[in-house]
Amino acid sequence: MKKEFEQYFKTLLGDENAYFDDIHKRAYSYDATRKHYLPDGVLFPRSEEDIIKILKFCNENNIIVIPRGSGSGFTGGALAVNGGIVLAFEKHMNKILEIDLENLVAVVQPGVINMHLQKEVAKYGLFYPPDPASMEYSSLGGNVSENAGGMRAAKYGITKDYVMALRAILPSGELIRAGKRTIKDVAGYNLAGILIASEGSLAVLSELTLKLVPLPKFTKTTFSIFPSVKSAMNAVYKSLASGISPVSMEFLDKLSIQAVEQKFQKGLPMDAGAILIADVDGNVKEAIDEDLKNLEYHFLEAGASEFKIAKDEKEAADIWFIRRNCSQSIAIYGNLKLNEDITVPRSKLPDLLEGIDAISKKYGFKIPCFGHTGDGNVHTNVMVCDKNDKEQVKRAYEAVEEIFRLTIDLGGTLSGEHGIGLSKAPFMNLAFSDAEMELMRNIKKAFDPKNILNPFKMGL
Amino acid sequence: MKKEFEQYFKTLLGDENAYFDDIHKRAYSYDATRKHYLPDGVLFPRSEEDIIKILKFCNENNIIVIPRGSGSGFTGGALAVNGGIVLAFEKHMNKILEIDLENLVAVVQPGVINMHLQKEVAKYGLFYPPDPASMEYSSLGGNVSENAGGMRAAKYGITKDYVMALRAILPSGELIRAGKRTIKDVAGYNLAGILIASEGSLAVLSELTLKLVPLPKFTKTTFSIFPSVKSAMNAVYKSLASGISPVSMEFLDKLSIQAVEQKFQKGLPMDAGAILIADVDGNVKEAIDEDLKNLEYHFLEAGASEFKIAKDEKEAADIWFIRRNCSQSIAIYGNLKLNEDITVPRSKLPDLLEGIDAISKKYGFKIPCFGHTGDGNVHTNVMVCDKNDKEQVKRAYEAVEEIFRLTIDLGGTLSGEHGIGLSKAPFMNLAFSDAEMELMRNIKKAFDPKNILNPFKMGL
Repeated sequence: MKKEFEQYFKTLLGDENAYFDDIHKRAYSYDATRKHYLPDGVLFPRSEEDIIKILKFCNENNIIVIPRGSGSGFTGGALAVNGGIVLAFEKHMNKILEIDLENLVAVVQPGVINMHLQKEVAKYGLFYPPDPASMEYSSLGGNVSENAGGMRAAKYGITKDYVMALRAILPSGELIRAGKRTIKDVAGYNLAGILIASEGSLAVLSELTLKLVPLPKFTKTTFSIFPSVKSAMNAVYKSLASGISPVSMEFLDKLSIQAVEQKFQKGLPMDAGAILIADVDGNVKEAIDEDLKNLEYHFLEAGASEFKIAKDEKEAADIWFIRRNCSQSIAIYGNLKLNEDITVPRSKLPDLLEGIDAISKKYGFKIPCFGHTGDGNVHTNVMVCDKNDKEQVKRAYEAVEEIFRLTIDLGGTLSGEHGIGLSKAPFMNLAFSDAEMELMRNIKKAFDPKNILNPFKMGL
Repeated sequence: MKKEFEQYFKTLLGDENAYFDDIHKRAYSYDATRKHYLPDGVLFPRSEEDIIKILKFCNENNIIVIPRGSGSGFTGGALAVNGGIVLAFEKHMNKILEIDLENLVAVVQPGVINMHLQKEVAKYGLFYPPDPASMEYSSLGGNVSENAGGMRAAKYGITKDYVMALRAILPSGELIRAGKRTIKDVAGYNLAGILIASEGSLAVLSELTLKLVPLPKFTKTTFSIFPSVKSAMNAVYKSLASGISPVSMEFLDKLSIQAVEQKFQKGLPMDAGAILIADVDGNVKEAIDEDLKNLEYHFLEAGASEFKIAKDEKEAADIWFIRRNCSQSIAIYGNLKLNEDITVPRSKLPDLLEGIDAISKKYGFKIPCFGHTGDGNVHTNVMVCDKNDKEQVKRAYEAVEEIFRLTIDLGGTLSGEHGIGLSKAPFMNLAFSDAEMELMRNIKKAFDPKNILNPFKMGL
C-alpha cells in the first residue's frame, strides 16, 4: 500500500483506527477456514460517514476493500485473497441503535454480535430467531452478508426472513436505503433481497433493521431412536405435513451416534440407524402437548423404537449435548475433517445419505453426517485419517466434489448456510450455467463497476 | 409491427397463438387502472421453449415485450405504454405441475390463478397464504412480479415469503434458475429475491416453486369498536407485542364506517372512531381461546367499547361483509376515487391518519381510509365529487402527492402491494435518491441490456 494512501486513512480515522503494521495485518488475515492471506491494512470506521469516505477514496484509487464481520466464516468470504483494506466493525460500529417495541424491529450496526441482540431483546420478551452455530461470536453484518441459517430454520426461517431494511454504501461512496420498517413494501427493486447473501461483494452494510417476534413462553425437547435414516426422514415429513411446526429437527446418523457414544458414554444405542432431536415451542401448554402427542404418533408409526420427552431443562440439556458434541466427537475417525453444509429438498435426504454411503465405500473414507432434517441441511464430514498423506487428502477432495455433484443432481445446493467465498468457488460451475454466472457478474458490475469490493469470491 | 415479424411469430406458435388483429390488441390493452395502450400483438406461449425463442427474436429485433398476468394490476404494470408484444400465459401456461407433499411446495406455471392453487392444495390439507383482493382472478406469475400482499400478511407474510425457486428467461433467451426447493440456499446471489417485485422488467417467469404450509384447522373472527384510531392502533400494537399472531387485523375509519352504515344499515355506530376486525387461527382450540382472551383484554384496556367474537360462520361472514364492502360504500362521497396503498410502520398509523385528516381539510376532499393495521398498509381514498371538474381532479392529485410525501416522511413506502408501474412512477423521486434510481437502472441493464422487457415502468 502506498504511503500516501496510508496517510490518508490515518488522517481520516486517526492513528488508532487505521493500522498497517504486521501484527494487525496478521490478526485480520484468517477466518474459520484456517487459510491466511495478509491484507494491506485494517480500518475501523466509526460511522457511516467514515465508510462513505473510505469507499470513495478506495474506488478512486482502485484499492480493494474487504468488509469483515467476526471472521467466523467457513468459506473464506472475509479473506484478503488479493490484498486490500479490511473494514472491521467490531470496534465502533457495534451498537444496538434501537429496539422498537411497537413495530417489533431492532436497528443495529453491522458489528453487533448475534447473541448480544438475542439477549437484549429477550429482556423485552422478544426474540431474534436466526441462530447460526457461531451466534456467540458472529456479527449480524456477517450473518446478513452470508444469509446465515441455524437450528431453528425449520420453524422460523433464516436470516433473510428477518431483514426488513438495510442501509449500505456503494463502492462509489453513495448511500443506498433498501427496504422499510414495514412488512409490505413493493416500491422499486428489492435491493435488500439482493444484498442479503451477497458476501460483501455488492455494498458495505452500515445499518440493519431486523424483524423481531414475541419470545415463545415454553419449549419442550424430544429424543427418538430410529432403525434407519429412511424411517427417521419419513417421520419428519409426516409430522411436518400434519401441521406440527417443530422449532428444530436435528438428526445424527449411525457413524455420528457411534462417535458420540465412544467419546462420552451417554448410553446411546450403537446399532441405531438415526437419532432425531426435535424441539417444539409456543405460548399455550395445551398446544404444545398436542404437538408432542402428534409427534409421538408419527414418529412411532414411522418406526421409532423410542420416543422420549425431556422432563426438565436438565434432561433437555443432556439431549442437546449429544447434538452439540457431534462435530468434535467424529474426530475419532480422522485428523482432517472436510465439512460441507450441502442442502437438498427434505424428501431427498434418504437418497442423499444412501449416495454418500456409496461414495464413502468407493473412496474408503468414513463420512459421518448430522444436521438439520427439518430443512434438508446436512453437515457431511469426509474424515481423513492422516492429514499429512497428500494422496489421501487429494482423494478426500475428490470425494467432496462427488458429494457436490450428487447434491446438485438431487435438486440441492452447494451451500445451505456457509456461503461460497473461496472454498466453494471452484464448484460454482457444477451448480450454475454460464448464463447464470454471467448474470451474477453483470449484477456485481451494476453495484461495483471497478470491482473493488471483495473481488475474486464466489467464482465471479 | 413489421409483417415479417408477425409471420415469424405465427410460424413459431401457430396462427391460434399469435394475434395481431384489432380485437385482440384491444382486449389486451387495459388493466385495473382503466388506462388503455394498444400493444402491437398478443402471443400465447405454450412452453418455456416458446418463451426462449420469442425473447431471443425480440431481443435481436428490438421488439418490446410485456409479460402479462391477468391484467388486474392497479398501477399499469402490464400496459403496453410504448407498444410491443404482450406475452399472455392464461391459455397454455396455466397448469399446476406438481404438489409435493413431502417438501410442502407447489410447482406452477405463471398463468395459474391464485385461488385455483389455494383450492387444489386445500384438498391435501395444505395452504397457500398470500391472498391479494384479486385472488379470484389474478395469476401467480403476476402476484410474484408485483410481490402481492393481502389480508393475511400480518401473520403469514406476503408473496415473497412463499417463493422458493423460479425459472425465468432473460431477454437474451437464456434460461436462469433462481433458488431451490430448500429452505436454505446461499450459493450465489439471491436472484429470486431481485426477480420478485420486479414488475416483469428483468426476466420472464416460466415456472414458480411456491412454499405451502399446513392448513390451520380453526379460524375465529372478532369485531370491536374503538373511540378513536389512536386507541385502535394501541390495541393492535399491545396485542401483537404480547405474542398473539392474528391472521389479519383490518380497520375502518370513521368515514368508512359511516359509508358502510349509510349504504347497508348494519347497525354500525355512526360516532365510532374506528372498527377493528381481527381473525385468529390455529390447530388447537385451547390456543385459539387463549389468543381470543388476550385479544379481548388488550382491546378493552386500549379503550374498545365493544369486543365481539363471531359465534359461527354466518356471524363471521356478516362481520367480514363490512370490511369487504368498504371500497364500494365510500362511493357515496364522490364519483372519482383516487385509491392508494401506502404503508407506514405500524406505530406511525395514528400520525399518518392525523396527517391525512389535515390534508382532507386543506383540500376539501373526504379521504376515507381502511385497510391492514396488522402490517401498516392503509388504503387511502381521495374522493372527488365531480370527476368532470378538471380543476377538482387536479387538486385531488395534488392531495395524493401530499399524502405520498407524508408517508415517506413517516418512514413509509409509496406502495405496500400494488407496485409502481406507470401510475406511481412520477413519485419515485419522492422515495428514492438519484443514486438509488441509478442503481436500479444499472440492475435493469444487467438483466436487459437492450431494454426490451417492460420498459418505461417504475420511473426507470
